[in-house]
Amino acid sequence: MIDVCLLGTGGMMPLPNRWLTSLMLRYDGGSILVDCGEGTQIAMKEKGWSPKPIDLLLITHFHADHISGLPGLLLTMGNAERTEPLTIAGPKGLSRVVGALRVVAPELPFDIQCYEFSENEQTLQYGDLRIKCYRVHHNVICYGYSFELDRAGRFSAERAKELDIPLKFWNRLQKGEQIQHEGRLLTPDMVLGPPRKGIKVTYCTDTRPTDLIVKNAMESDLFICEGMYGEEDKLEKAKEHRHMTMYEAAQLAVDAKVSKLWLTHYSPSLVKPEPFMKKVRKIFAESYPGKDGMSEELRFIDE
Amino acid sequence: MIDVCLLGTGGMMPLPNRWLTSLMLRYDGGSILVDCGEGTQIAMKEKGWSPKPIDLLLITHFHADHISGLPGLLLTMGNAERTEPLTIAGPKGLSRVVGALRVVAPELPFDIQCYEFSENEQTLQYGDLRIKCYRVHHNVICYGYSFELDRAGRFSAERAKELDIPLKFWNRLQKGEQIQHEGRLLTPDMVLGPPRKGIKVTYCTDTRPTDLIVKNAMESDLFICEGMYGEEDKLEKAKEHRHMTMYEAAQLAVDAKVSKLWLTHYSPSLVKPEPFMKKVRKIFAESYPGKDGMSEELRFIDE
Repeated sequence: MIDVCLLGTGGMMPLPNRWLTSLMLRYDGGSILVDCGEGTQIAMKEKGWSPKPIDLLLITHFHADHISGLPGLLLTMGNAERTEPLTIAGPKGLSRVVGALRVVAPELPFDIQCYEFSENEQTLQYGDLRIKCYRVHHNVICYGYSFELDRAGRFSAERAKELDIPLKFWNRLQKGEQIQHEGRLLTPDMVLGPPRKGIKVTYCTDTRPTDLIVKNAMESDLFICEGMYGEEDKLEKAKEHRHMTMYEAAQLAVDAKVSKLWLTHYSPSLVKPEPFMKKVRKIFAESYPGKDGMSEELRFIDE
Repeated sequence: MIDVCLLGTGGMMPLPNRWLTSLMLRYDGGSILVDCGEGTQIAMKEKGWSPKPIDLLLITHFHADHISGLPGLLLTMGNAERTEPLTIAGPKGLSRVVGALRVVAPELPFDIQCYEFSENEQTLQYGDLRIKCYRVHHNVICYGYSFELDRAGRFSAERAKELDIPLKFWNRLQKGEQIQHEGRLLTPDMVLGPPRKGIKVTYCTDTRPTDLIVKNAMESDLFICEGMYGEEDKLEKAKEHRHMTMYEAAQLAVDAKVSKLWLTHYSPSLVKPEPFMKKVRKIFAESYPGKDGMSEELRFIDE
């Protein structure tokens, strides 16, 4: 299970009742945060999710609305007596930016490791969770993230019995281990059916639509994408500032064959996303306007 | 008239429904902001006060809860198309801290001038407003601020007539000008009574009580002071972290003969200040628990 929460849905500047866009994922006892603008730690507290177990902070890019809440978050994690190291990953220049912002948070009870991407596509591993990091198209270097959890095939007790595999090895084989036993190599594929559908979440904001987004978002269960503008006459503005309209996000959702789309990163000029949803849903029916604190537990299909 | 607003009342970290401590003053068409923690720009928007006319930003000290909202505020002021320069004043090291935080706000349509204090007591002038800046006692260099507006004596038409001063000079003399006329030097004291009571506001937070606070807060109309803890057993903690209890703030109010005290900078552990107010008021009757967005128009007595 992956627990996801869209902590905020605003772009550019935080507003009363609209936190800046940021995503939090809870998986296997730890947490991942994507972006940390001004107020993100308050949004987290409002949701009731703790900043303490955040092991990994992914930054899309270095515009203030995506990172200026970092020093406050780090201090709050420190006040919660976190001592385990924190990894921060993001575009080239990350160490310099984190170092500069820490001028007001110089002393922390935990270490910070910065990891800078050097390629257009890179993969990080967070336990069993695979994180695909891919370059998007904004006016500064910016990355999108896809979170993938594989699911092994179903275990066949019948097949294990047929192959005379002792009961004590079943669990280990089910977990993917290979076992040497009495001159025989026992492998998971001997007792597991074909891989089943896993879980996939994709997050991308501050970008024009690109093929790399479609590729990486392919068949996501949940696609969280910026829809900065709803007014049709804002397309030119979107192009100029390297953002996208809600309709472009919906088209990406279609192209990437995702199950569901949550829009986010609304322009401060956009009071409410709802008036535009009817038209957005004509392009992609399973479109939803993101709301601050909106969350979902993503589970394996028959779990 | 000085319009003051306590934008937030929290210390250490921003909380849902409690912005970080910060004060905004509007005077003569411009604005002054004291401290800018994470979320201060949102608190300002919630109050309906604009960040655009802020000409002067005073920083008490460089702990994140007092300055981490700076990059976001600067960008929002830039987005509001401010082009007039902004002065930021604060303790030694200010330029370095502002420079570092601007890593995420490098391009602005206005200039920033940093002014670093070198003395324990210094005076800034903001139009007619005199700002006394004085060192307080925290675990890093920290300053308190007093805002003073003088008021000239009452103009005496009778006296002006007695002295044969032409009507056309009355207004200029009233405004404090000296005038050379037909071999005679006309001075304001010829037509003005003794100076009348002006307006004084004092703001001090993140400090132990000190004599310099009493001296600078003397006879303030409004004294805004930290009261981080209300529980009596927190006195030791207050001493250790160089903060003060509400009772110590009330005693400062007594010693400085102020008219009114607003408490602020509550510890995140303090849910509500009200339960402690009865005891605080036994020390100083005109004590009030600060609230986010609490404001007052301070006027000359019979204005």
